Amino acid sequence: MCRWLAYHGSPIIIDRLLTKPNHSLVDQSINARHLALPGYALAEQFRGHDFPTNGDGFGIAWAGRQGKIGQFHQITPAWDSNNLHSLAEQIETTALLAHVRAAPGGTIAEDNCHPFVHNGWMFQHNGEIGGFSSLKRDLTLEVSPELYPFITGNSDTETCFYLALTYGLAEDLVGAFLKLNSRIESARADRKVTEPFTACMAASDGETLVTMRVSSQSNLGGAQPPTSPSLYCAEGPAKIRLTDGTEEQLPADTQLVCSEPLELHFSDHTWKAVPDRTITVFKRGQAPAHTRIPPV
Amino acid sequence: MCRWLAYHGSPIIIDRLLTKPNHSLVDQSINARHLALPGYALAEQFRGHDFPTNGDGFGIAWAGRQGKIGQFHQITPAWDSNNLHSLAEQIETTALLAHVRAAPGGTIAEDNCHPFVHNGWMFQHNGEIGGFSSLKRDLTLEVSPELYPFITGNSDTETCFYLALTYGLAEDLVGAFLKLNSRIESARADRKVTEPFTACMAASDGETLVTMRVSSQSNLGGAQPPTSPSLYCAEGPAKIRLTDGTEEQLPADTQLVCSEPLELHFSDHTWKAVPDRTITVFKRGQAPAHTRIPPV
Amino acid sequence: MCRWLAYHGSPIIIDRLLTKPNHSLVDQSINARHLALPGYALAEQFRGHDFPTNGDGFGIAWAGRQGKIGQFHQITPAWDSNNLHSLAEQIETTALLAHVRAAPGGTIAEDNCHPFVHNGWMFQHNGEIGGFSSLKRDLTLEVSPELYPFITGNSDTETCFYLALTYGLAEDLVGAFLKLNSRIESARADRKVTEPFTACMAASDGETLVTMRVSSQSNLGGAQPPTSPSLYCAEGPAKIRLTDGTEEQLPADTQLVCSEPLELHFSDHTWKAVPDRTITVFKRGQAPAHTRIPPV
Amino acid sequence: MCRWLAYHGSPIIIDRLLTKPNHSLVDQSINARHLALPGYALAEQFRGHDFPTNGDGFGIAWAGRQGKIGQFHQITPAWDSNNLHSLAEQIETTALLAHVRAAPGGTIAEDNCHPFVHNGWMFQHNGEIGGFSSLKRDLTLEVSPELYPFITGNSDTETCFYLALTYGLAEDLVGAFLKLNSRIESARADRKVTEPFTACMAASDGETLVTMRVSSQSNLGGAQPPTSPSLYCAEGPAKIRLTDGTEEQLPADTQLVCSEPLELHFSDHTWKAVPDRTITVFKRGQAPAHTRIPPV
Repeated sequence: MCRWLAYHGSPIIIDRLLTKPNHSLVDQSINARHLALPGYALAEQFRGHDFPTNGDGFGIAWAGRQGKIGQFHQITPAWDSNNLHSLAEQIETTALLAHVRAAPGGTIAEDNCHPFVHNGWMFQHNGEIGGFSSLKRDLTLEVSPELYPFITGNSDTETCFYLALTYGLAEDLVGAFLKLNSRIESARADRKVTEPFTACMAASDGETLVTMRVSSQSNLGGAQPPTSPSLYCAEGPAKIRLTDGTEEQLPADTQLVCSEPLELHFSDHTWKAVPDRTITVFKRGQAPAHTRIPPV
Repeated sequence: MCRWLAYHGSPIIIDRLLTKPNHSLVDQSINARHLALPGYALAEQFRGHDFPTNGDGFGIAWAGRQGKIGQFHQITPAWDSNNLHSLAEQIETTALLAHVRAAPGGTIAEDNCHPFVHNGWMFQHNGEIGGFSSLKRDLTLEVSPELYPFITGNSDTETCFYLALTYGLAEDLVGAFLKLNSRIESARADRKVTEPFTACMAASDGETLVTMRVSSQSNLGGAQPPTSPSLYCAEGPAKIRLTDGTEEQLPADTQLVCSEPLELHFSDHTWKAVPDRTITVFKRGQAPAHTRIPPV
Repeated sequence: MCRWLAYHGSPIIIDRLLTKPNHSLVDQSINARHLALPGYALAEQFRGHDFPTNGDGFGIAWAGRQGKIGQFHQITPAWDSNNLHSLAEQIETTALLAHVRAAPGGTIAEDNCHPFVHNGWMFQHNGEIGGFSSLKRDLTLEVSPELYPFITGNSDTETCFYLALTYGLAEDLVGAFLKLNSRIESARADRKVTEPFTACMAASDGETLVTMRVSSQSNLGGAQPPTSPSLYCAEGPAKIRLTDGTEEQLPADTQLVCSEPLELHFSDHTWKAVPDRTITVFKRGQAPAHTRIPPV
Repeated sequence: MCRWLAYHGSPIIIDRLLTKPNHSLVDQSINARHLALPGYALAEQFRGHDFPTNGDGFGIAWAGRQGKIGQFHQITPAWDSNNLHSLAEQIETTALLAHVRAAPGGTIAEDNCHPFVHNGWMFQHNGEIGGFSSLKRDLTLEVSPELYPFITGNSDTETCFYLALTYGLAEDLVGAFLKLNSRIESARADRKVTEPFTACMAASDGETLVTMRVSSQSNLGGAQPPTSPSLYCAEGPAKIRLTDGTEEQLPADTQLVCSEPLELHFSDHTWKAVPDRTITVFKRGQAPAHTRIPPV
């Protein structure tokens, strides 16, 4: 339920990620290929194919001028947006988060479009807190009273973001994400919610990127497949196939994480699956640091 | 900081209220004439005139078919809306709430457009809870946990609506509004908020209409003018001047309450100011019943 | 590249067509199953499945009150729209046109949302005039100068509508559609356009419904399949499977035409394919009258 | 019936023009002070004040990266737009056009938001072609057939832009504008239109800026006031009063043209009225060159 990408590296014009690749994020807005929605009736109608549509708005946020994070959100589909196509040609940055939204049953508002931005941080999510309406009050009350008034939308993701900030995201990236996951799981247990929590999340302050791939059932092993959404990583000067058939090479210091590869036919050599139940910290110029999430 | 109207009476096609009068609600969206915003810097720039613009979205809700309240919300200005002009010609009802929004500093979303609708009730508001960001958490926590998940936007009005429902709006109209007002005032006192609470509110279940005109300083008397927004009432077969210069007569059983009269030049005979610090209950076929709100 | 339905019959509340069936028009906005787009690169990526997404806005028009055609258009996807869900519960009519739009390469505006409405007629289209940018000027110049100023959008369909009105739609339904088709074909020949014209069109004045299914290559026979979009018809008290698993029966005098059946698994007994190269006139209480379109 | 600004000069971040001044273009979207609309009934209701509201969408275009003109258009009011506030902080350019729209009777679409952009040129307009519906066909037919398909909206301004391009804007700035003005006037005469043509227009290719201030009655002299909209120019290191009370100085090579000054209380020393019936060419590093428009 959504597709996103996160880029850290040398300055690039963001059309190289958003619109030019042959399975760019904009292409994924209308034609996602790895979006499994177990238990979602409409998805089952796609008869073995993954759910292709992420048309419930989109957003981008990036390390910008004047020490600020730039942001742009729109409620209409990304594939349609002349604004997005022009802005993608004009924005150059060293750190980008970008998101196309699928929100079955949610409401459509800029306030609900990812990435969420507050106090120098940007944040996005693919997945959902199952049974969120039963958990929303408990989780929202846990947000620090100082941060509470900044919540403007109604999505589970925004609650996650303000919880992560409450848990000290700026000081302890891994600790904040671990606590976020365990708090959501304890809320599910408290309220006896059976629908799983599923998440691929990303947060960035422009300098450090952190991602988490996890879900309620990802530690079960055995017959049932994990429900964590897909997440891929490409590092270094990856070549990406463009819609015009040519290839373009990313900067040598690229750190790129995506819900699915930006190419229709992709090599496992370039695109590595991010391990499940893992928090990954990408510091510039360093190899990514993985932390295994223990069973809750 | 908004304009609204509420109609109860015999079935009418709602263009007679929304678009045809020479100071219809749609005209008030771009040209309000009695919208005072004490202390609002931008309003002061209008040099003695009231703030004319209510362009931050609009909405209508009405007693509809299938035992349901119909609703329509849009984020663009009412004066622009071809949809609103056509729907106004097509919708016939015995109970209508309609609202054009001015939201300085607020966010623009259908979720923030009045009237709010839940469980057979519709609700709208002109005014604001001053210092709401300081009070939002306290007030929202007071909403019944069963109702809490239905809050989808971030406006002070939606919080008021769910508080009124929490306080038993369906069982005790006057009691729920009294409690709403006193709870907001106690929250202001708790948090030492000095910006006033100002309100003209309306709620309807299609059978009974209730309005409240009140503000924090409306009981002070003395030199300072009350800050309650304007509210007018017209009852019975009022004639309204249309944009084409003719007059049209409303049904004999009309109960109509508006932020300002639907005519540019209006008679005090037709349009009575609703008394300040008053809750008024309009039951069909009965004279309105006023309840004075005691000082908090 | 769109989906639509047209209903004539006894008054019905339109949720019975738009939202309740298990493959309602709203379901078709995100999950169309019979939308072939030969030669469209993105559609080929769906690997043998038809292109599912009609998310570039939607609209409805209906025989309404005050002798007027009511209308509502929105630029966001139909599957998302709380407005559409509520209006569908509230609007009752004897004649409805409804449309969900897929506009690859087009622009997103209410002005481009079908159905188009002018002077008592409503009009909608699935398909496209291939190479329209080469033909637009020739075709638009042919619109009557009196009608020309009413064109507000940039779609090929709106040009078709005003051409049909220019050709006397109100006086000679079949003649106007025949002339429209032949004029488009002669323009294609003049400009040596090779992309086909494809169309399932519907026009209604609330009393009579006329549809046309045709395409440039639909008369070729031989190996190449026709490119006319799919079109189905159901007449009389058809039972439709709803999303809740139950069935609902339409009025006995139903005349219903759709891009694809309103049920996921449908019976050929209920849903008949409309013959290709055919103009069909539905008068109330009469069997549909088919006119074969001769080769151009 | 709009407000705009055009800037050429050293690179600046555009919030210095769009949002920070105390009568910035965003402030003018809700509180224009010099917008006279002679003969417009609603404007007369503002009782001697000018019409304040330009809420029917907005747009910006700028000399951008990759040799392209960047652009962003939105249909909701500028004063509301979080996107505009963030983008204004992030975009740096040497050439900006920016526009807030008032479109009484027009339709609301990104396709109708100025600035219009085509083939390296950007274009915007305040004013209108009176009686445009009578003239639209004649004027549109005069657009070069090669350019015709690029018209996507329905505004008089877009027609003016494509006419100016047809008349060789890129080769002869002054000649193209003179021909545009005379052709509109001849069309008015042909169709016996009495409503005036009024215009303050601006075009830029990023290197040269050209403006035209003219109207049908601006050459009459005598008792009747000219109907050309207001237009002001500031050159060099002008200091502008910001909303926070401080002043900020523009670059020394600033060439800035605006519908009205960006300050609430402005000095005639800084802000010069652009003469009526004048085409002005601003080349970088040169004094503006004025061409008087002869009576038609």
